[in-house]
Amino acid sequence: MSNKFHMHKSRLEALVDGVFAIAMTILVLEVKVPNIEDKQSASALWHAIAHDGVVIAAYFFSFAMLGQFWVWHHRLTAKIREIDLPLLVCSLCFLALVCFFPFAAALFGRYITNLTAHFIYLPLMGLILATQAIFFWLAMRRDLILDSVSPIQALAAHRNNLFGCAIFMFAFAPTGYRLHGGITIVCILGGAYLLWHVIKLKKMQNQLETASSTKN
Amino acid sequence: MSNKFHMHKSRLEALVDGVFAIAMTILVLEVKVPNIEDKQSASALWHAIAHDGVVIAAYFFSFAMLGQFWVWHHRLTAKIREIDLPLLVCSLCFLALVCFFPFAAALFGRYITNLTAHFIYLPLMGLILATQAIFFWLAMRRDLILDSVSPIQALAAHRNNLFGCAIFMFAFAPTGYRLHGGITIVCILGGAYLLWHVIKLKKMQNQLETASSTKN
Amino acid sequence: MSNKFHMHKSRLEALVDGVFAIAMTILVLEVKVPNIEDKQSASALWHAIAHDGVVIAAYFFSFAMLGQFWVWHHRLTAKIREIDLPLLVCSLCFLALVCFFPFAAALFGRYITNLTAHFIYLPLMGLILATQAIFFWLAMRRDLILDSVSPIQALAAHRNNLFGCAIFMFAFAPTGYRLHGGITIVCILGGAYLLWHVIKLKKMQNQLETASSTKN
Amino acid sequence: MSNKFHMHKSRLEALVDGVFAIAMTILVLEVKVPNIEDKQSASALWHAIAHDGVVIAAYFFSFAMLGQFWVWHHRLTAKIREIDLPLLVCSLCFLALVCFFPFAAALFGRYITNLTAHFIYLPLMGLILATQAIFFWLAMRRDLILDSVSPIQALAAHRNNLFGCAIFMFAFAPTGYRLHGGITIVCILGGAYLLWHVIKLKKMQNQLETASSTKN
Repeated sequence: MSNKFHMHKSRLEALVDGVFAIAMTILVLEVKVPNIEDKQSASALWHAIAHDGVVIAAYFFSFAMLGQFWVWHHRLTAKIREIDLPLLVCSLCFLALVCFFPFAAALFGRYITNLTAHFIYLPLMGLILATQAIFFWLAMRRDLILDSVSPIQALAAHRNNLFGCAIFMFAFAPTGYRLHGGITIVCILGGAYLLWHVIKLKKMQNQLETASSTKN
Repeated sequence: MSNKFHMHKSRLEALVDGVFAIAMTILVLEVKVPNIEDKQSASALWHAIAHDGVVIAAYFFSFAMLGQFWVWHHRLTAKIREIDLPLLVCSLCFLALVCFFPFAAALFGRYITNLTAHFIYLPLMGLILATQAIFFWLAMRRDLILDSVSPIQALAAHRNNLFGCAIFMFAFAPTGYRLHGGITIVCILGGAYLLWHVIKLKKMQNQLETASSTKN
Repeated sequence: MSNKFHMHKSRLEALVDGVFAIAMTILVLEVKVPNIEDKQSASALWHAIAHDGVVIAAYFFSFAMLGQFWVWHHRLTAKIREIDLPLLVCSLCFLALVCFFPFAAALFGRYITNLTAHFIYLPLMGLILATQAIFFWLAMRRDLILDSVSPIQALAAHRNNLFGCAIFMFAFAPTGYRLHGGITIVCILGGAYLLWHVIKLKKMQNQLETASSTKN
Repeated sequence: MSNKFHMHKSRLEALVDGVFAIAMTILVLEVKVPNIEDKQSASALWHAIAHDGVVIAAYFFSFAMLGQFWVWHHRLTAKIREIDLPLLVCSLCFLALVCFFPFAAALFGRYITNLTAHFIYLPLMGLILATQAIFFWLAMRRDLILDSVSPIQALAAHRNNLFGCAIFMFAFAPTGYRLHGGITIVCILGGAYLLWHVIKLKKMQNQLETASSTKN
């Protein structure tokens, strides 16, 4: 019994908060202070910055994405009792992808019209979503959900995760088409499969709700 | 009921503390180690650093600003019971602006005589102040103030926020004039409007104080 | 009594979590956004990034290493009651090496076929393992293990530390041979010595287990 | 009463831990990965890194300094009950100097034989020591020491602070002489003044100890 690995949630949260705080701040390092010849010229500086306008817009977009991942992760972790080894490995994969995000965001900001940049930025977001969905699914399978969270609530959270992944798959399909039609087909099939699961979970949730309301 | 979003304050604080710690430390990255030819020459290195004196002074000024924002944010958060979705969104906007601050500070340090740099640095500070004022105003409206904080104290904090924004508006007016007279007019009108609110809140606070002292 | 130095565990943990979060995020700074001439060309960007493929693979490998060190450190710290001065010094040495890790990882990523890069990256990992083993050994010697941790568990943790170091020594032996045969001999002898300790500890542990099971 | 500013210690500690974690990690950014032509050549890479040996040694030295400041700060904060406004301002000054430390350390590492680099690095360390001494002195004056800390212990901590500053002043005197003899005189006089205080505090402490032992 003493050999079983388990970790306090608060420790992982401290690392996650730290990594997100730094990843968010590192995003701005890509917005470079321009070099202009006439240091006094307001218009020259303005044009130089406006030229980087896309980079700045991409910064705020990437920040919003990271913010959303952080909130999502915290909402999932709040439902979990304890971290065991598979959950920890999954969390570290999640963090590795989050730490990699500033690079993808920098690439996306600088080459916003380039297909390759999209093909790194978007699938990375998809992978981050996927690790979160797997994280919570593992927690459900391994019975690590807090007792205060009802099965209905756990199912709803899992359903939201899958729904997010499905939405991502459908949104990525047209981008995939620009590289190869096969990617689009895989995306649509994958998204449809996830959506089918979402619907199944919704039904299961409805049945549980009916059952619990009948009981009361 | 279980669907309502709410978040523990301590989580947001961990992210805020992390972001501020990094933003403060990243400020110094703009102070570059100079390259001089004669590595032994004390005077050459001294001149090279003195040449960057403005950048160093700007570092300490920007640090002081961030320090003040941090203290201010903590004083407001200390009065709040819980974070709900609108407060969270407002906080993430606040953090996005704080993370962007090192870029603006670097721009300000390098182009301190350039109007464009002022027009990015100063309004950013104004926006940070504004997100804080909105943050607390939202908390008051949504009834998320701690019970141990009396209405008089909450009003006083809100009044301080608005007063800070008003002061900023008046201070920005002359800078705005250098670009366009219209900005000055908007700033003065906005500042006056906020000041009028401050005075109204002061009166309300006085009435509450009189009422509570009469009661006792 | 009041003069004896001791520190709360949580303080050290906050610093450790912060340092790891940053070291992990800084790893990605080595993955540079490539500069290509034709900004629209997807294939040019793809080739430029594929050219850095080794750097990206090294990033994920180094991240996994850091993740493992972090988990290991936390598992050891969870068994400790309090930090005294020697433990603190040992922890700061550990952190200094962890902070140095991003440099070694960058070197390793860029010069993956270069023997010198291996000779900095691998011994650094060995030193990090060693500081952890010493950290726990010191805690055992100075009687700072938590009462809730049985002597059998403490011995098992110590044994795992030594086993990790032994494995590292054996793994490093062939690399050492490429520089000098003597390093290989030292590595094999050192690894064998550690392994002998591991076996001795295993026996001691078995005896303790038999004793405790007889008692019950 | 409600208007008096006070802040929970844990909040400041979170910021301090974050800032130190980042400052420590940023130190390593100055150790640059060298560019060599023959990527396979182990000796070329080794020479390139050995050339940066001083920078690497300076990294470990600066890390040790930051580690010591961190430990010192935590030992002082552990004796304090609460943070009020002057203590907060003093702490933020301390943090501003700590954040500035990586720049001074980079300068010191690159221009280790240059007097100007010494004249920035060493006084910065002195200022950091001074802000800590002032921090604790303010806490004593404003009666913010924890009740569990006896006056003898508080005096001993204050004495250690002053002693550290005195040692620094004497150590800086010969360096100061290389620029101007007046600096040496000021350093020696300042150090002597602090030392005189240290002796006075030692006597006061002895009297208190005698008094308390007589009482028992």
